[in-house]
Amino acid sequence: MKKGLLIVNTGHGKGKTTAALGLLLRAWGQGMRPCVIQFIKREGGNWGEVKAARRLGIEWHQIGDGFTWLSKNMSESVAKTHRAWALARKKIASGKYDLIVLDEFTYPLKYGWLDVADVIAWLRENKPPALHLVITGRDAPPALIEFADLVTEMDKVKHPLDQGIRAQPGIEF
Amino acid sequence: MKKGLLIVNTGHGKGKTTAALGLLLRAWGQGMRPCVIQFIKREGGNWGEVKAARRLGIEWHQIGDGFTWLSKNMSESVAKTHRAWALARKKIASGKYDLIVLDEFTYPLKYGWLDVADVIAWLRENKPPALHLVITGRDAPPALIEFADLVTEMDKVKHPLDQGIRAQPGIEF
Repeated sequence: MKKGLLIVNTGHGKGKTTAALGLLLRAWGQGMRPCVIQFIKREGGNWGEVKAARRLGIEWHQIGDGFTWLSKNMSESVAKTHRAWALARKKIASGKYDLIVLDEFTYPLKYGWLDVADVIAWLRENKPPALHLVITGRDAPPALIEFADLVTEMDKVKHPLDQGIRAQPGIEF
Repeated sequence: MKKGLLIVNTGHGKGKTTAALGLLLRAWGQGMRPCVIQFIKREGGNWGEVKAARRLGIEWHQIGDGFTWLSKNMSESVAKTHRAWALARKKIASGKYDLIVLDEFTYPLKYGWLDVADVIAWLRENKPPALHLVITGRDAPPALIEFADLVTEMDKVKHPLDQGIRAQPGIEF
């Protein structure tokens, strides 16, 4: 049985986005067509993965505004999220891709900017059967976990930030 | 404070090797020099990540023989492990790399083919301070976790194999 999977990388440890990047590399190596949509990360953020994707010819969209829950302008964050989800729906329904990553997509669900039941209903109706869809972010809602095929929880055992070691290129970005 | 990290991806869920591949992509995107040594995966295995690494010019070594604990020829597995660790020591000590992945390196430690205390003592003495070293595999020994800077446990919440969905290109390999 071959099936496009709904994959969720969640938990409070490192490795959620990073493992999605690994799937991207693997899929690219297999000649598959991948696409990434980042929901939270700041537009124009020139991370290592963005530089790599550009060199690999992997389609990559950043629509977030680097929002945090302390953001001053929350309504703008919500509006951007809706634009990102509209783009994601278009990409998913297009049938042009083998693997799509919705990076940090759990946050708009967690904050209620998108309705989990609506999102799942839409995916159930519109996700091409062979498409692998990867969703990352902390606190994946139970309904999403229930709907997913493959769910991994990344738990922090030890993190260098706790020892005063700052984020470094090639590791965190 | 900038510091080459010892990173351990462990646990029984998916995403240990995959997250190491993500770091590889990120580091490659940042213009860093990465290298991968696979301790268990079968030589010549032409996985998506191997194809990708070849196209990216990333140095990649497979020294395992696809061993499992049911392997008939255990002494050969042990011998290969020792050759792989000799190669790893050479690469680590060379100072030529920014990031080295020792994929599935926890298994020879777990099975006692390499002594954990010896490995840690060697790393303490010889790992260049700026080198990021990534070790993947289940059941990382406590002493290795103690020695590491960044440890994530990948836990299985749900896996498609449990639902009769087989391993698929771009996802598992």
